[in-house]
Amino acid sequence: MKTAIGIDLGGTTIKGAIIGETGVCTHITRVPTGADQGGRHVLSNIMDLIGELINKSGRDASSFVGVGFGTPGFVGADGMILGGAENLPGWKGTQVYAPITERFGLRVSGANDVTSVALAELKFGAGRGVQNIVCFALGTGVGGGIATDGKIYKGTHGMAGEIGHIVVETDGAQCTCGRKGCVEAYASATGIVKMAVDFAKTETSPFAAIAHETPAEVTSKMVYDYVAKGDALAMKVHHRMCDMLSRAIGTILDTLSPDRVILGGGVMMAGDVIIDTVKTYTPKYCWPAIYERCEIVIAQMGEDAGVLGAGALALEEFV
Amino acid sequence: MKTAIGIDLGGTTIKGAIIGETGVCTHITRVPTGADQGGRHVLSNIMDLIGELINKSGRDASSFVGVGFGTPGFVGADGMILGGAENLPGWKGTQVYAPITERFGLRVSGANDVTSVALAELKFGAGRGVQNIVCFALGTGVGGGIATDGKIYKGTHGMAGEIGHIVVETDGAQCTCGRKGCVEAYASATGIVKMAVDFAKTETSPFAAIAHETPAEVTSKMVYDYVAKGDALAMKVHHRMCDMLSRAIGTILDTLSPDRVILGGGVMMAGDVIIDTVKTYTPKYCWPAIYERCEIVIAQMGEDAGVLGAGALALEEFV
Repeated sequence: MKTAIGIDLGGTTIKGAIIGETGVCTHITRVPTGADQGGRHVLSNIMDLIGELINKSGRDASSFVGVGFGTPGFVGADGMILGGAENLPGWKGTQVYAPITERFGLRVSGANDVTSVALAELKFGAGRGVQNIVCFALGTGVGGGIATDGKIYKGTHGMAGEIGHIVVETDGAQCTCGRKGCVEAYASATGIVKMAVDFAKTETSPFAAIAHETPAEVTSKMVYDYVAKGDALAMKVHHRMCDMLSRAIGTILDTLSPDRVILGGGVMMAGDVIIDTVKTYTPKYCWPAIYERCEIVIAQMGEDAGVLGAGALALEEFV
Repeated sequence: MKTAIGIDLGGTTIKGAIIGETGVCTHITRVPTGADQGGRHVLSNIMDLIGELINKSGRDASSFVGVGFGTPGFVGADGMILGGAENLPGWKGTQVYAPITERFGLRVSGANDVTSVALAELKFGAGRGVQNIVCFALGTGVGGGIATDGKIYKGTHGMAGEIGHIVVETDGAQCTCGRKGCVEAYASATGIVKMAVDFAKTETSPFAAIAHETPAEVTSKMVYDYVAKGDALAMKVHHRMCDMLSRAIGTILDTLSPDRVILGGGVMMAGDVIIDTVKTYTPKYCWPAIYERCEIVIAQMGEDAGVLGAGALALEEFV
């Protein structure tokens, strides 16, 4: 079986593994990112991790088809980080491909981290059997990954899939990007917490009392724990979140008419309650004929999706 | 040189031509659509036109690589019209591929008419030399066509590219689709006229006087004739149109990060004034790094874009 080395770069941890064509994922290894020490140091940590994985495998570097990596932000076609990774100071401007190829003799393919996850879903998860998918990753922010005609779509400069910044409400909630009304400001964990704390000022419910007293302790998981109990504040936040997310999904449906929209990320630990409610809002925001032909489903790949998709990038490109 | 038969189906006219690989377009022939006589009659007219083109060519049908056609609405992968062509009653549900193949022994590839235009731009026009483009056709409505990684992207059911219904203003202007605030309600000829007539009720300018007196005679061309004169009403309409169009372009940029956004259709007869103003608004509505890497340009293909792109569909798929 052909194998690749997958690297999933996060703000605090770099995760590496050996990925096989069938989606098998072995030798999972984590090292600290060391983001505060700058882009060069992060790259050095990635390189050492690749070396460690090759050693652990007991094989020659040349036996791997290549290295795939997922990163926050944008990777240019030549392996240069072009931006969009605010939590990794100095990472922008780092050339990633050349040093890895020089040291290990391996080709490298990189992509945005959610794009990597989308590839994992396409090949091994909720996207199996179809050609066109769009993934929303509902985490601290909202990321996106797109596959068209059975292949990951990166855009020429690796910048496609910034669907967290689809505007869903004119002059709406402030987004971290500086604009207003982006879906990220409602459907991310951060956005959900902010809505809960804001609404708690005027709403009355058991959860509202807690959110009002100790706003700093509110989490999106807590919101969904109270949704499960039918709490009025939590339900209000949930419906607004799902309404806004559905507007972005509607835009995506009209634009790309995917076979499946896949919702993942930490927020989706809440599970079917979000899928079910999104399905009540989305038909209002797109062509009925397109909606009828698209499934909205929950992501199937777990916490290894990033590193698996990263390895799959190399397997897709170099096999 | 390999050639195909291209068919461009419109609400009033069916246009056919013989299209060569280099974009050469000969034997252009027009026949009435006969839309009021139903889908079966329209198909019969298309078939007769194909027969006429083969006769005119003096060649065997088998010397063509296939037939390509562009149509309003959605074409499924099997050649069934799946909807979205309201000006062609009874066209939905028509199977187009099988009868043509049966009569002429030629393979058929169909797509939405603006998707066909996008292919013509990609291969021979404003999209030459790049891989990823999005076309906006600003006509009676607003249509769209998308190419990813150098190929036309139709979506599994031929429904991709309904970007005229990207919502750009929450609870905004009424759109013909039943929703509110779609970009089509502002950036189509119909939307431009409606804005001019509405604004004329309160605005004072030479054009406002005319629009107020004879609203039924206002056209989008007239609006842009007055934009050229700096008329206050016309400028107000123009800026609102460009602002709203830019919001949709911003969404497309964040989603697909295309190399070029190509603006075409009848409204774009106004030319650079729209491009120039759109370029002042769009940066507000997307990631700066994505905007910097995308050109917003005017369509280059003229009135034959539809039939040329239709033929190119067959050349792309069957050569």
